[in-house]
Amino acid sequence: MRTAFRIATALLWLGVAHAEGPGPRATGDLGIIVEREHGSLQLIETSGNSILAKISGLGDLSHASAVFSRDERFAYVFGRDGGLTKVDMLERKIVGRVVQSGNSIGGAISQDGSLVAVSNYTPGGVKVFDARTLELVADIPAEFAKGKLSKVVGLVDAPGNRFVFSLWDAGEIWVADLSTPAKPVVDKYLDIGRNPYDGIITPDGRYYIAGLFGDDGLALLDLWQPQNGVKRILPGYGKGEEKLPVYKMPHLEGWAMVGGHAYLPAVGRHEVLVVDMSSWQVVKRIPARGQPVFVVGQPSGRHVWVNFAFPDNQYIQVIDTLDQRIVKTLEPGKGVLHLEFEPRGGEVWVSVRDLDQIHVYDTASYERQSLIESRKPSGIFLTPRAHRIGL
Amino acid sequence: MRTAFRIATALLWLGVAHAEGPGPRATGDLGIIVEREHGSLQLIETSGNSILAKISGLGDLSHASAVFSRDERFAYVFGRDGGLTKVDMLERKIVGRVVQSGNSIGGAISQDGSLVAVSNYTPGGVKVFDARTLELVADIPAEFAKGKLSKVVGLVDAPGNRFVFSLWDAGEIWVADLSTPAKPVVDKYLDIGRNPYDGIITPDGRYYIAGLFGDDGLALLDLWQPQNGVKRILPGYGKGEEKLPVYKMPHLEGWAMVGGHAYLPAVGRHEVLVVDMSSWQVVKRIPARGQPVFVVGQPSGRHVWVNFAFPDNQYIQVIDTLDQRIVKTLEPGKGVLHLEFEPRGGEVWVSVRDLDQIHVYDTASYERQSLIESRKPSGIFLTPRAHRIGL
Repeated sequence: MRTAFRIATALLWLGVAHAEGPGPRATGDLGIIVEREHGSLQLIETSGNSILAKISGLGDLSHASAVFSRDERFAYVFGRDGGLTKVDMLERKIVGRVVQSGNSIGGAISQDGSLVAVSNYTPGGVKVFDARTLELVADIPAEFAKGKLSKVVGLVDAPGNRFVFSLWDAGEIWVADLSTPAKPVVDKYLDIGRNPYDGIITPDGRYYIAGLFGDDGLALLDLWQPQNGVKRILPGYGKGEEKLPVYKMPHLEGWAMVGGHAYLPAVGRHEVLVVDMSSWQVVKRIPARGQPVFVVGQPSGRHVWVNFAFPDNQYIQVIDTLDQRIVKTLEPGKGVLHLEFEPRGGEVWVSVRDLDQIHVYDTASYERQSLIESRKPSGIFLTPRAHRIGL
Repeated sequence: MRTAFRIATALLWLGVAHAEGPGPRATGDLGIIVEREHGSLQLIETSGNSILAKISGLGDLSHASAVFSRDERFAYVFGRDGGLTKVDMLERKIVGRVVQSGNSIGGAISQDGSLVAVSNYTPGGVKVFDARTLELVADIPAEFAKGKLSKVVGLVDAPGNRFVFSLWDAGEIWVADLSTPAKPVVDKYLDIGRNPYDGIITPDGRYYIAGLFGDDGLALLDLWQPQNGVKRILPGYGKGEEKLPVYKMPHLEGWAMVGGHAYLPAVGRHEVLVVDMSSWQVVKRIPARGQPVFVVGQPSGRHVWVNFAFPDNQYIQVIDTLDQRIVKTLEPGKGVLHLEFEPRGGEVWVSVRDLDQIHVYDTASYERQSLIESRKPSGIFLTPRAHRIGL
């Protein structure tokens, strides 16, 4: 058997060397880039900054996002058309796909990696799938009044195989415990504010925060003390600030949390807000080049990177969190849609849609290290997200 | 070629099915357990909690530690005998080994993954190796006076391909910038206190903290503002507290940082200290079952787990950080040496040396999920460390 194995191995290396690459492949430095208009992904690696493969047939990928299996082998891609596609990054192909609703917006993977949840607009609710087989294991319609289903947004994972999400039409936050997958236990928080449009969870899994499109401020739920209910924080935020036309409601995922402060996009204003996370008060407003979309913390501390809505989406600005001011402005080109840091922060990947390019920058020198061709790239997702809460 | 490839693949799967397992393997859920007295490792996976392979021939592994390559394929194991061993976790074998000094204590991998550094007692200094080939690329003797070399301890990686470490004999902290590997640039901080014995860096790469065996308190260097020099913090800590016999100087790696507080082992006392990280003052002392060794934060927030020095090393205690009190005592058995959480915190792996066992506990129910045979296990290291600063 050992000899047979060795021959097979030798043959395989030969075959692989021509067909795919140099043999076995680890997965800690992999990632995917969403080519939104082509329904395709580029499989990338961040050690040499290269494209390993293209994978097509994922449907409508506008506003698509992805999560990863706990072993970093599989990507689960959530499309706008309700498609949930499972991609095997080692075999470099689609291994499962369900069109699970008419219209969806994001998903999450459970703490133990066994369940993938998707939040849907039509019909409104959350569906939960077996991460291995993509079989439906739980269906949670967002019925907030008799026969009325709400659009669901801001779906995240929380410790204990729970999922937390917000109901746009109902103004509610729901916490679903999937410890027994077939029998979800749902805690509902009512009257949290009008039209929550997105949500995040802090990296320690403690706070869930929903943005409110129809009300001032943000809704905060302390998952360590849920008995205290949902509180309104940052009373001036959002609607109250909307003095300029809002081209794009900023993502909440793009909040940087550094040294007890959260850095977040002001709505409709050319500012990044600095918020003290113990009091949830705004302590500083940093003037910026445009309306911020993502405000992302560099994992190696100190700096926060910001991109902007149209008409300023050709810029990136970098904030030094020590003195809370902008220290660098980059101009990658029109259509900077997303930023993703390598996990230890040495380089950052930037999608530049209108140039059909991905740029990779050194975060210390700000020099461009790599330029990769891509067709209308949007989201960039690296496998270390598998190991983080809420990503 | 495609046909040849398919035949090779089919043969390999056959071979693999018998010899190794079911084909390609991702690396995000792998880890190693150090069998200290046998010079061997167990290769583990945390999805099904099983042993995949045993790898022998690593020399003296007492007090051994490990870091991982950025793709999570390779483990670099630092042995007490000066051995640096590179293990391919996909091929399940040793692929490189150098005995690089007479006596060493720990190592680190650079931010970009290209360099592995080892701190040595004999001869005192740091050697830096190419992570791919294990060729020596830089040698930094810890010469603090003419012809006098210091033992080096507390070596960590810092953002910007830097390494930070402490000189036991000299009472100094050095910061080595390896941006140009062949020409390290070393900044030295003198008179930081007598006999630093260990060091850590905070997860954001900002603060380096050295424990002092021969002085009160701890030495703190703010790497964002190095011009401010090294400050002494926690003046009562360490020597000043030593009222009971100290069986084991507690590791500094085992500091939990949760919600602006650091939880750390008191030296020689049956207490866990809670320190406010903005003022670096002790704000609470939590009585515990013995002298703490590791105080480790559960990634999913709220709880901190503690193990103890002899004669209380059969216990683990769990602290709730919300009200800062002990909420659970477990008794896995004599010789609980190390704790390692899975990256999203659902389970924790515990080495129980005297039982020759590894226990895996569910962190919510405290129930034991798995029991794995191991020979005198000590350190447990999971691959998600590859993506963290200072681990």
